[in-house]
Amino acid sequence: MSRFFSDKYAALTPYVPGEQPKNQQYIKLNTNEFPFAPPQAVVDGAKTEAGKLQLYSDPECTQFIEKAAQVWGVKKTQILATNGSDEILNFAFMAFCDKNHPIAFPDISYGFYSVFAELNGVPYEKIPLKADFSVDYRDYIGIGKNIVIANPNAPTGLALSRAQVEEIVKSNPDNAVIIDEAYVDFGGESCVPLVEKYDNLLITQTFSKSRGLAGARLGLGIACEGLIADLNTIKYSTNPYNVNRMTMAAGYAALCENEYYKTKCAEICKTREDTSNALKEMGFEVLDSKTNFLFAQTDKISGKALYEKLKENGILIRHFNGGRIDNFNRITIGTKEQMDVFLKKTAEILKEKE
Amino acid sequence: MSRFFSDKYAALTPYVPGEQPKNQQYIKLNTNEFPFAPPQAVVDGAKTEAGKLQLYSDPECTQFIEKAAQVWGVKKTQILATNGSDEILNFAFMAFCDKNHPIAFPDISYGFYSVFAELNGVPYEKIPLKADFSVDYRDYIGIGKNIVIANPNAPTGLALSRAQVEEIVKSNPDNAVIIDEAYVDFGGESCVPLVEKYDNLLITQTFSKSRGLAGARLGLGIACEGLIADLNTIKYSTNPYNVNRMTMAAGYAALCENEYYKTKCAEICKTREDTSNALKEMGFEVLDSKTNFLFAQTDKISGKALYEKLKENGILIRHFNGGRIDNFNRITIGTKEQMDVFLKKTAEILKEKE
Repeated sequence: MSRFFSDKYAALTPYVPGEQPKNQQYIKLNTNEFPFAPPQAVVDGAKTEAGKLQLYSDPECTQFIEKAAQVWGVKKTQILATNGSDEILNFAFMAFCDKNHPIAFPDISYGFYSVFAELNGVPYEKIPLKADFSVDYRDYIGIGKNIVIANPNAPTGLALSRAQVEEIVKSNPDNAVIIDEAYVDFGGESCVPLVEKYDNLLITQTFSKSRGLAGARLGLGIACEGLIADLNTIKYSTNPYNVNRMTMAAGYAALCENEYYKTKCAEICKTREDTSNALKEMGFEVLDSKTNFLFAQTDKISGKALYEKLKENGILIRHFNGGRIDNFNRITIGTKEQMDVFLKKTAEILKEKE
Repeated sequence: MSRFFSDKYAALTPYVPGEQPKNQQYIKLNTNEFPFAPPQAVVDGAKTEAGKLQLYSDPECTQFIEKAAQVWGVKKTQILATNGSDEILNFAFMAFCDKNHPIAFPDISYGFYSVFAELNGVPYEKIPLKADFSVDYRDYIGIGKNIVIANPNAPTGLALSRAQVEEIVKSNPDNAVIIDEAYVDFGGESCVPLVEKYDNLLITQTFSKSRGLAGARLGLGIACEGLIADLNTIKYSTNPYNVNRMTMAAGYAALCENEYYKTKCAEICKTREDTSNALKEMGFEVLDSKTNFLFAQTDKISGKALYEKLKENGILIRHFNGGRIDNFNRITIGTKEQMDVFLKKTAEILKEKE
């Protein structure tokens, strides 16, 4: 920290992204990436724009937003596109939270929520998950604070129903409720239909997971017009041209390929169930995932040791140090072939330990 | 403004970007874009990454940063890449300014500085330009506030010398000085060599102007390691994957094509001088630009009227309403052919007025 750094960040500890190894080929099951390359139409969309980069991108993201509004069945004025969904989440913390408007979220969830709160000087309450690692929606009823919940949650993979989320939203009419649906397309129930009914609900989604565009950086927010107008005020006060031309074109093309992604997501869900069953047969406890990852532990080896052994064997999974989840690992669902290698190596590691 | 919007933004008026027309072909001389399409190597760089978008981008931007460090002659740890230079500017306001650390900048300059200040709750002082629209560097000597100066300045196009900037930096050792060099490659004197000597100096640059990548969104900050570390703390607390794969590859390729850009910038400077002379012959007052735009006025027609008439004729320039610059227009230097059309139409408009 230099002597010029504002002391308002005294307590700020930045987010630590998953490893992105550069020098070695791993089977990468650690950052919940989509295991398939983009379809040709998406690649072509991005490529076409590469020749026009001397011109600014459209700050209103018009073509993309129009298509997105059609896909999600809302008005154009109810959507905002961002440079990944971290940006829309930060915008929401900036817009709706401050020292007088604290926020609550599950104690085990996306690690960035507490970072956004610290960054923006927002008091926050971490509400413990239940013993089974699920979110108890009743903990949030009439809580009188802003709320952010990843649904399905990460790294647990567990989901609330839309009806449960609605109870939370309805019971906190004077607070903003942010539902982070990064993983919703792998078996969750989206709450987008609720934005017509509630003026305090913001849904965030990302193209990094179920649309396989993590490297393009594209996220979005869906809400009533009032909330989106506020978030646009933040956008136009930080970075009006926040989404570049190539990403916007890739995102537009991806929205035109909805059927492709649906098929691939179904394939990932099938592989997830097969992998979950195989892990259970090896003696793992595996939570009931509605995402493109599994959260699993076993008494036979510590979470950290399994992570390290797999890394030695060329497979990256994600281990979160400390607390109640120290023995768990989060395992992204890759292709069937990748998961077969993962299962084989895991079985070998367990066998060595016997 | 919704009832959920934080009242800390009560005074916030977002930045208004230049028009980005979608439905009509204009000669676009209004947002200081580079008038040439990217060279093939840059297009190819971006295209190669389009096929790998399912994987996150490298949050450390390693390959790009290594090349940039070589080009600018600094250490890798002295550079940070961002999603356009608006992002590095906002990071700097966040990191080094707060209610106890105000900032000063010229009253006529990049309109975003006051927006960043309002957004971040930073008190700010606007220091008037001299009557000739130049920055008087003596106004900033020992001022005891953080400082941001666009050098060359926009929309005036006028530049301070490196020696003058050094006086400012040296005389404010306990405050951060940000020199925004968005336009430096069109005739300014870069202050990057000063970062070795001063721990309170941050240089920001962009690939939007002299490297023709406005639509890719790429900016950077260069400073001592301490300031860059602080800015990285902000980056990793807002958006760790802030630069997407395609943009990073395009930026890397652009750095490998330095000679191409030098040649093209020289061509733009030549066209600027020709255009300036032609405008002066028509009776315009034209400031001495070290940028890729001209700032000009004439008694023969108001700035607003000229802007409107040119727009009717298919040419977009930028007019800033109000105050001392109300009669001026900012005219981006396009290709020689574009400027010939601009000059011809301007002459016709003046003739009509006679």
